[in-house]
Amino acid sequence: MIEIITIGDELVSGSTSDENSRYISEAIYSIGMTVSKITTIGDAVEDIENTLRGIQEQTCFVVITGGLGPTEDDRTAQAAAGAFGRKLILNQQALDEIEKKLKKFDRTVSTAGRKQAILPDGCIIVPNPVGTACGFLIEDGKRHFVFLPGVPEEVRAMTESFLLDRLKKIIKSKQVILNQTLRVFGLWESAIQDRLRDVFPDKSTASLGYYPDFPEIRLKITGRGSDPERVRQDMSKFQEIIYEKIGEYIYSDRDEPLEEVIGTLLKNKKATLSIAESCTGGLITHRLTNIAGSSQYIERSFIVYSNMAKQELLNVPSDMIQKFGAVSEPVAFSMAEGVRVLSGTTYGLAVTGIAGPAGGSAEKPVGTVFIGVSSLSGTEVKQYLFHGSRDIIKIITSHTALNNLRKFINAIYNRS
Amino acid sequence: MIEIITIGDELVSGSTSDENSRYISEAIYSIGMTVSKITTIGDAVEDIENTLRGIQEQTCFVVITGGLGPTEDDRTAQAAAGAFGRKLILNQQALDEIEKKLKKFDRTVSTAGRKQAILPDGCIIVPNPVGTACGFLIEDGKRHFVFLPGVPEEVRAMTESFLLDRLKKIIKSKQVILNQTLRVFGLWESAIQDRLRDVFPDKSTASLGYYPDFPEIRLKITGRGSDPERVRQDMSKFQEIIYEKIGEYIYSDRDEPLEEVIGTLLKNKKATLSIAESCTGGLITHRLTNIAGSSQYIERSFIVYSNMAKQELLNVPSDMIQKFGAVSEPVAFSMAEGVRVLSGTTYGLAVTGIAGPAGGSAEKPVGTVFIGVSSLSGTEVKQYLFHGSRDIIKIITSHTALNNLRKFINAIYNRS
Repeated sequence: MIEIITIGDELVSGSTSDENSRYISEAIYSIGMTVSKITTIGDAVEDIENTLRGIQEQTCFVVITGGLGPTEDDRTAQAAAGAFGRKLILNQQALDEIEKKLKKFDRTVSTAGRKQAILPDGCIIVPNPVGTACGFLIEDGKRHFVFLPGVPEEVRAMTESFLLDRLKKIIKSKQVILNQTLRVFGLWESAIQDRLRDVFPDKSTASLGYYPDFPEIRLKITGRGSDPERVRQDMSKFQEIIYEKIGEYIYSDRDEPLEEVIGTLLKNKKATLSIAESCTGGLITHRLTNIAGSSQYIERSFIVYSNMAKQELLNVPSDMIQKFGAVSEPVAFSMAEGVRVLSGTTYGLAVTGIAGPAGGSAEKPVGTVFIGVSSLSGTEVKQYLFHGSRDIIKIITSHTALNNLRKFINAIYNRS
Repeated sequence: MIEIITIGDELVSGSTSDENSRYISEAIYSIGMTVSKITTIGDAVEDIENTLRGIQEQTCFVVITGGLGPTEDDRTAQAAAGAFGRKLILNQQALDEIEKKLKKFDRTVSTAGRKQAILPDGCIIVPNPVGTACGFLIEDGKRHFVFLPGVPEEVRAMTESFLLDRLKKIIKSKQVILNQTLRVFGLWESAIQDRLRDVFPDKSTASLGYYPDFPEIRLKITGRGSDPERVRQDMSKFQEIIYEKIGEYIYSDRDEPLEEVIGTLLKNKKATLSIAESCTGGLITHRLTNIAGSSQYIERSFIVYSNMAKQELLNVPSDMIQKFGAVSEPVAFSMAEGVRVLSGTTYGLAVTGIAGPAGGSAEKPVGTVFIGVSSLSGTEVKQYLFHGSRDIIKIITSHTALNNLRKFINAIYNRS
């Protein structure tokens, strides 16, 4: 079994979130193994010692992060020495590494820096490619304890450069492990489970993991086995079945966000997009412009929060707003068409709705949303009723709008 | 001692980050106590049972989150029954609560839903103000185990409505504990620490906690003692000193986000705002419209990603863009003034910059940003050079823009 221990007063007081254990867990999972336990404790020496001593019999590999810095309250090396009954000694290799790094900045090793080279006797140094403090490995019988600093970038670098290789060597896995992630939107986890129940190939070497990431689900297929060809075959057979059952809800088989899928689509088609947002207040365009290079296809957006803005900027007729209301099918239609024509873009996307908590009525409750997509060949509007807080309604509206746009564009190209 | 146990395969596989333990730790810290250990394990019944059994002697209060849902792999109640040697029985109070909630949606309790009411014998129900699954409390000798669901909003609600009160009762603290959170932007943690070094009143009952929340810092003052009057006095004395040292960087003493501070400011002054965003791509308006009631003061926004959009929508002269570039002081000035005048709002806010990763030059590297704020009495532009990824640059630009707007409005009213 594999365990992680993260150390720091800032973690148990809730002032910092523990990014390291999530990163290491996922890295270990991606090479086909699973962490069974993560323990977070403060900086006190006795707590660290007790936790190291209390590691379960079956655990063969432990990753410890934090408490290797130069300051007084970094006491992990001391605790490790105590727990494994070893002396603390100046490790010449560690000191050399630190000196070499500081030389680059024309600095010499201070007393505090020297402290970082005082490590348990007989440990193996784990080089730190990005920071000063070395990590170290202690072998205690059949068990391996890898101590890393607490700085997230250093943990990431040392996981890549040392930890995973060492773990594979120890576990002596000859298995081939392949991963593929499908992104699903429009079906909840339970509905996906219902549809995929009993379709799992009987003797398959592939397994399926659900990773909800509101408002979508990441479906991770993991294949493992000793025969690479067999694993690959099983994976693709399984993927085929999944597409058969829920294909219409899968928007990516490469674990990329919706805004990136749309970006690639628009770039490939040399198309441009303009957006008219009301209740989403800029979230749709914010998401689309998170993608590097989006200025190639995002021309402009209008956030038309007031009725006046809808009329003045998008030519929505004022009597239309009066007759049907700003949140209505004709207004969404007019916004989508208006933003496309006035901006001179290939596509226009528009949303108008009631994000709440106020502004709802019996006829149009909070969560009522109209989404319009427009191209030269026509404009389509769909109506929705979403539930949840203002934030949630904004998020799910933006997701639905992007997904409608994706389907709309695909339909045009599939038709022709 | 106090411990937290978080349960879920999605946590040990690294597919979800554990928001709950950070939230609960901070909440407990804010009532003057400290969590000593956080343990994260998967969904396996025997792991949960073993972890519950292995809780240290000295621990008197344990919070467990996760695994109370309706599906097969939610097995926390079963594990709790095993660990404490109790039967699993249908808890009528829990069933009533679930039925009451589902009735609102015209739904009846399914078999899966009914599972959520099958709980260890003799437990005390912890009502869930926002979701379906109840929590429960088991008293085992002098020790208390509070089981909560894993959904973050539900954990938050139940911590507020139940957990903290119960913890105070058990610890029988007669101490008065007061908290106040100051929001700081523009100084890093180390700079704040430098300025506040040695200013802490000697025999004060107040202490200070740093909670970095990029790109700002939440400074939490916690006062504790037996004499409420004394605690209050020390708190306010301490706060006075903090304001003396770093007051210009504090934007709220009520733990509210920047967008809410601006919303209140605009509402109180009956003022309106329009925004012209380039590199932030809608993020500024998205943040402002996250605040309920923002339609009272947000009139409209333009996301002018292309040069053409800047010219057509905001009347930025094309020769100005040609001469100075789209990312320049005159263009930011023209955008801020243009958006205000054309929208007929009290204030105009504009940003233009290079979010990267491409688009930088020797003269204007990635991260170069100009922020303009405009009112009838004048327009101000400031230049920045931010560092980091595209996401980071968007976030810090939106934060700086909102903060500049806040200062600009305050300066106008302080002057008059």
